[in-house]
Amino acid sequence: MKYYDIFVVGAGPVGLFTVFEAGLLGLTCGIVDALDRPGGQCTELYPEKPIYDIPGVPYQTAQQHVDALLEQIKPFNYDLYLNNEILTVNKEKENLFIIELKSGQFISAGSIFMASGGGKFVPKKPNLENLDVYENSGLVNYTLKNIDSLKDKEVVIFGAGDSALDWCLLLNERQIPKKLTLVHRTGKFRAAPHSVDALMDKVSKNEISLYLNSNAISINDKGVLINQKESEYFLNADKIYMFFGLIMSKANIESFEALWGINGLINVNTENFQTYIPGVYAVGDCNTYPGKLKLILSGFHETTLAVQSAYKRIKGETPEFQYTTTSTNLIEMLKR
Amino acid sequence: MKYYDIFVVGAGPVGLFTVFEAGLLGLTCGIVDALDRPGGQCTELYPEKPIYDIPGVPYQTAQQHVDALLEQIKPFNYDLYLNNEILTVNKEKENLFIIELKSGQFISAGSIFMASGGGKFVPKKPNLENLDVYENSGLVNYTLKNIDSLKDKEVVIFGAGDSALDWCLLLNERQIPKKLTLVHRTGKFRAAPHSVDALMDKVSKNEISLYLNSNAISINDKGVLINQKESEYFLNADKIYMFFGLIMSKANIESFEALWGINGLINVNTENFQTYIPGVYAVGDCNTYPGKLKLILSGFHETTLAVQSAYKRIKGETPEFQYTTTSTNLIEMLKR
Repeated sequence: MKYYDIFVVGAGPVGLFTVFEAGLLGLTCGIVDALDRPGGQCTELYPEKPIYDIPGVPYQTAQQHVDALLEQIKPFNYDLYLNNEILTVNKEKENLFIIELKSGQFISAGSIFMASGGGKFVPKKPNLENLDVYENSGLVNYTLKNIDSLKDKEVVIFGAGDSALDWCLLLNERQIPKKLTLVHRTGKFRAAPHSVDALMDKVSKNEISLYLNSNAISINDKGVLINQKESEYFLNADKIYMFFGLIMSKANIESFEALWGINGLINVNTENFQTYIPGVYAVGDCNTYPGKLKLILSGFHETTLAVQSAYKRIKGETPEFQYTTTSTNLIEMLKR
Repeated sequence: MKYYDIFVVGAGPVGLFTVFEAGLLGLTCGIVDALDRPGGQCTELYPEKPIYDIPGVPYQTAQQHVDALLEQIKPFNYDLYLNNEILTVNKEKENLFIIELKSGQFISAGSIFMASGGGKFVPKKPNLENLDVYENSGLVNYTLKNIDSLKDKEVVIFGAGDSALDWCLLLNERQIPKKLTLVHRTGKFRAAPHSVDALMDKVSKNEISLYLNSNAISINDKGVLINQKESEYFLNADKIYMFFGLIMSKANIESFEALWGINGLINVNTENFQTYIPGVYAVGDCNTYPGKLKLILSGFHETTLAVQSAYKRIKGETPEFQYTTTSTNLIEMLKR
């Protein structure tokens, strides 16, 4: 079972910077995130938006900020557990937590850092009867992982954003499915203009079927019934993909239910950002304390102090405090 | 009398970033610093050293960090009072401090932010009898401000770093003094190699007199007595400049004597980084609280929370909390 000094929940900016501060003290990190890439909100919600208030960085898009943090933590080994989440946590003994992941893996950790921001991102779902039945049977999906499994299948994709269109175009280009249909609620796409142009070209050549102003009405194990104006159509489907975007859902770890206070935030003290459970810390937007502001720059401060405290707990001694400007061994480690 | 919502003591990174956070809330700032340029320790002690632990900035020299902060605060009006310091502060009424500067100026301010780091930089001085007498008479100086006042004077410069050599070479080039002498304690210079080469060239041409391995022994109103090996020489001087570098001295504001605790640091609470004097805040390396780490990234967090508190005090209401990524008026303000 893999051991980390710090197991971080959430690969947003504050989770990523935790790897840096931990690395300076020689502590190891693993990070779990529900998304399929690091960056959290920055990458998922507003990658192209400029952030102006990262101190010492007059202009940076959210994606550039995440890229810079990934570059900054390169000198350190860390593992990312993506498309994943914590199911249960058990405190085995002082400074040893056993963590069960959704993927079935078990992890041991000296401390746990909640850096889960506003919660976890989950796919938006339509309101359809027995949806869970067809999710479980594998008919209805919200992510597409293995395109080769769609060989000669009838595929129906719902959505109008980049995910929906990009997958449509890729599947068409590779000529993988037997039949490919795109269904969209309105008449307007939200994807990049060149993707929309490419799609309409394929539609005009009858390579992709397109239903606009259409919604799913019901699902059975043969496919999906959709409406369009006054008409209804049944689309045979071996696989249905729904790309309606992501919404934020409360982070939910059964064993930690009590961590989230009445306001949905985790109470911490400002000396080390530890929660009421020794060895469990909360940093960034998921925590609260007097004066708290939900700013990335505050999360950086919080996790830096939390890492110092985790070190003391795990190693039983105060870390020798060093500056990256003056410590020879740190400079060697970080030199590029 | 000029009024600022926030008057900041210290133009280091944390003092500079205060202008940014204040600007976002529409508060005005003035900054006083003992040095002749902004940047504090970063610019003064290790401008060329890389800093690796500014979150989101994998590599930056200290000078580049300061330059980036100056760029970041460009959208806002602020005043720098350099080569200056606070002499006295009087609390006129709630949210109104009257500040007397060494330059003789009086400033009014709604709040005071101590961002004075390890203290103020002061020139290193030799241990000579009656030094203060000749400082007061203007014979002995530690900074050179008006080179034209040295026209046809006999000038003696002490030191071996860039300041000493650069001034020597400039005064020689402009042919300003009648006689120019450089005195240095050891035989080795600490200045840029090309400056040393240029100096030795001028010395070989008898344009500059040079005494190596020499120390000042005593001063009188006609000049300075120096030794060299077994000999002593009296150098006539109208002006003596001592460029022995800077040392950190405790920040010392008479009216605030009690701010600095027994450990020389200012106690603050972590909700708003206010001191025991309402309206007076302490941010960055000059403050202390449980868990405190002397890191620039912590100072950024501290001053951001302090600015929120200063706003509440001055305006009597909580600022509308906005993100630079989503607030249209902030984006307009900061767009570049």
